[in-house]
Amino acid sequence: MGNRLDVFKAAINEITDYGHITALLGWDMQVNMPAGGAEDRSDQISSMERLMHMKITSPETVQLMGEMREYAKTIDPDSDDARLIKVSLREFDKLAKVPTRWVAEFSKETSQAHMVWEKAKRSSNFSIFQSSLERIVTLRREYASFFAPYEHVYDPLLDGFEPGLKTAEVQAIFNALRPQQVALIKAIGQKPQVDDGFLTRPYAEKAQWDFGVEVVSKFGYDWEHGRQDKAMHPFTTSFGLGDVRITTRFDPAHGASGLFSTMHEGGHALYEQGPDRRFRRTPLANGASMAIHESQSRMYENLVGRSLPFWKHFYSRFQQLFPSELGNVDLMTFYKGINKVEPSLIRVEADEATYNLHIMLRLELEIALMEGSLEVKDLPDAWNARMSDYLGVTPPDDAHGVLQDVHWSSGYIGYFPTYALGNLVSAQLWEVMQQQMPDLDAQIERGEFSNLLAWLRTNIHTHGAKYEPQELLQKVTGSKIDPQPYVRYLTGKYSAIYGL
Amino acid sequence: MGNRLDVFKAAINEITDYGHITALLGWDMQVNMPAGGAEDRSDQISSMERLMHMKITSPETVQLMGEMREYAKTIDPDSDDARLIKVSLREFDKLAKVPTRWVAEFSKETSQAHMVWEKAKRSSNFSIFQSSLERIVTLRREYASFFAPYEHVYDPLLDGFEPGLKTAEVQAIFNALRPQQVALIKAIGQKPQVDDGFLTRPYAEKAQWDFGVEVVSKFGYDWEHGRQDKAMHPFTTSFGLGDVRITTRFDPAHGASGLFSTMHEGGHALYEQGPDRRFRRTPLANGASMAIHESQSRMYENLVGRSLPFWKHFYSRFQQLFPSELGNVDLMTFYKGINKVEPSLIRVEADEATYNLHIMLRLELEIALMEGSLEVKDLPDAWNARMSDYLGVTPPDDAHGVLQDVHWSSGYIGYFPTYALGNLVSAQLWEVMQQQMPDLDAQIERGEFSNLLAWLRTNIHTHGAKYEPQELLQKVTGSKIDPQPYVRYLTGKYSAIYGL
Repeated sequence: MGNRLDVFKAAINEITDYGHITALLGWDMQVNMPAGGAEDRSDQISSMERLMHMKITSPETVQLMGEMREYAKTIDPDSDDARLIKVSLREFDKLAKVPTRWVAEFSKETSQAHMVWEKAKRSSNFSIFQSSLERIVTLRREYASFFAPYEHVYDPLLDGFEPGLKTAEVQAIFNALRPQQVALIKAIGQKPQVDDGFLTRPYAEKAQWDFGVEVVSKFGYDWEHGRQDKAMHPFTTSFGLGDVRITTRFDPAHGASGLFSTMHEGGHALYEQGPDRRFRRTPLANGASMAIHESQSRMYENLVGRSLPFWKHFYSRFQQLFPSELGNVDLMTFYKGINKVEPSLIRVEADEATYNLHIMLRLELEIALMEGSLEVKDLPDAWNARMSDYLGVTPPDDAHGVLQDVHWSSGYIGYFPTYALGNLVSAQLWEVMQQQMPDLDAQIERGEFSNLLAWLRTNIHTHGAKYEPQELLQKVTGSKIDPQPYVRYLTGKYSAIYGL
Repeated sequence: MGNRLDVFKAAINEITDYGHITALLGWDMQVNMPAGGAEDRSDQISSMERLMHMKITSPETVQLMGEMREYAKTIDPDSDDARLIKVSLREFDKLAKVPTRWVAEFSKETSQAHMVWEKAKRSSNFSIFQSSLERIVTLRREYASFFAPYEHVYDPLLDGFEPGLKTAEVQAIFNALRPQQVALIKAIGQKPQVDDGFLTRPYAEKAQWDFGVEVVSKFGYDWEHGRQDKAMHPFTTSFGLGDVRITTRFDPAHGASGLFSTMHEGGHALYEQGPDRRFRRTPLANGASMAIHESQSRMYENLVGRSLPFWKHFYSRFQQLFPSELGNVDLMTFYKGINKVEPSLIRVEADEATYNLHIMLRLELEIALMEGSLEVKDLPDAWNARMSDYLGVTPPDDAHGVLQDVHWSSGYIGYFPTYALGNLVSAQLWEVMQQQMPDLDAQIERGEFSNLLAWLRTNIHTHGAKYEPQELLQKVTGSKIDPQPYVRYLTGKYSAIYGL
């Protein structure tokens, strides 16, 4: 079997390369590509995805996968080889259900839709994007049909981002969480508001960039194996363990937005740089799931980057960079300002207390679109109505409402819930870390981030995708996804800030 | 046959996409990639090239190509379809001779060699690069062996860049050219030297960048379908007709080097943006050959960009940008300075009179390496000896000698002669253009470049690779590659500058 295992691994290496190449096509599209390159790029991405699909569904691969399925039964199920076979078969079994024709069509549609969405967002006009999104929803419903029978039409989509998780489970978690978050927001709303006026001053982009670079460098981001660029919608991507790139953006109206974006993507990137090198060129070198991924980014952005110990260390340096904006703003005013809770329009700018409500709204709309109880043309109204219900704010236009996120233009339906789940996981991990490293806050206050990273490397990063998300979480925290640590975290933090 | 022709075209579209994707991997490697990404990138490029080779040599493609070979005999040989089949079969027949194993090995070797060469050049130490180059030469000799019998071992390599041209033909052209260029350089050497001291002042990079952008925009470079970045060794690449990118570099010790580099690459890019859209996603959307390509870049860099009419238009603007460097330098001093003839070490900085001698040196060394009469370890000595013979200068170190060019690290042996041939073709075209547009100089002096581009578009660019280089040249100029127009051009230009 040795020889066939080598053939299998070589095929996996090649397929992994194709994935990284496709990722580069996407990164370049969002970071560098001139507008006129869109049609060609869309053809290229389609060609790569068609190729990948044909390779995976070829008779040779089917034969090989069948042999590996049997072989895996004969070895230690926790061995790298068994896990590689398991993770590969999981993807393989899914892809085998999807016709090559659908893959090509979806790929072409979504790579064109990205430019259409950008244009629609620029002119704040949903109708420009409507027919693209209609085709994407139709394609996504067709995709779900390949996996029938299912418990819920949304399950096959969710599974693409969060292996094994069911719509019903997410709904149960969110149903437990929603009333507690709403109660917290209500309690905060009855207290005097904190001041964050200093955040809307025009912070110089370059100083923001430099400070962001300084911070993620301290976190341990390895620039020999990465770089940062600007993109309209920040993201992290990797072309192998040796090349993990982050992007950021600057909003002149929101002083520190570039910094928090950099810390967020830095968290993703630390994860992507962390899997053991023996997983190189295999799917085991990925993160365990999007929620685990998001737990890393939200941890660095929020549990670290919006914490008091962090700013006790960095604030004087930050103040130096922006003397006219922050010269007369003291540490506690700054700390409270960046943690101001206020229902608002834009998800990526939402505070930690309201953020998950943005996600719940999206989840419900996605489920309605997939169930067919909501039509795409009615989406802006549905969005605005729900924003008003949940957060008490109404978008003045589509750019600040239904068009704000890139995800749907990429065909990502089923992705959003992982953001909220990531928040929950970040707090679960944090509680364990604080038990095991009682002086973690003090370390952060001294600007020391190496033990934090070492803990994450050992417990999370190094394993890559070897363990399934719930399995990994169980190993590390003794529990599956649980909303209570996050509620405890929010309550503790905001009690101090707002004097609840 | 209609249906099979469609199948053929779809396959060609896909293969063309793979080529553009591979080009993006290369562009990113030279423009953006962090050093730590080299190993992964090398695997990715290998995977793409192996894929492309397997696709081209698959039984389905072999069968299809056989059918197309017969079909082409039944249609107008000048039709697009016949030409597409001809050009495709040309590549196909070549690739069919090269084993997949060689392609993978060569690709892996050369993508690693690029980083090795960069390191060797940085530390100016040929021995760092020696073993990489030895393996490349060995692989290139093996490549030639796949095409045995041949007239000359160098022929199969040359053919990769200049379809149909033989080593003996190039040697004949160079043998006719060399004594005339040497005599011209000698005559210039007996005249008082012009002053170019003002070029070694530290010109601000940003102003150079901006001026270069302004100039290539006037030339007609379309930024909706392209962009410019910095690279260690400037190059032009395209990912389809819709995305043609240039790169440039700035040498603080040579004031205008960034500008001339931008004009040179701009010339390539105008060609790549120019083929008719009906050739999209086919090899007919490429240039006819490297020499024709180089004729475009050298024309914009030299026949336009180092001409007196050009600077009569642009000099006052250029002077404004660099007041402290050029405030007291008048137009004629500047014009003579940028055309100073002086044997020197670096090819890309060589003047028009000595440039071709740099090429002849490389050609002879490449032939010797391929014949086996020169070993790689002896290359630095051979290089230095020949520099001394031909140009009377001796490199102080490897960085200014044998390590100066990127080409060998990319496996490009057989490429250099096309630079000199491009010079010759540029002058051939220029003579015809001046006959057909007698006021061309006056147009340039007025900053009008649209008729120039329109002529090139109609006569050269629009045809893409539909015609073979010598066929195209014959059509447009009534002659094949001929060194005499270039000699006339040089003699006329330098007689005026040096008062010969």
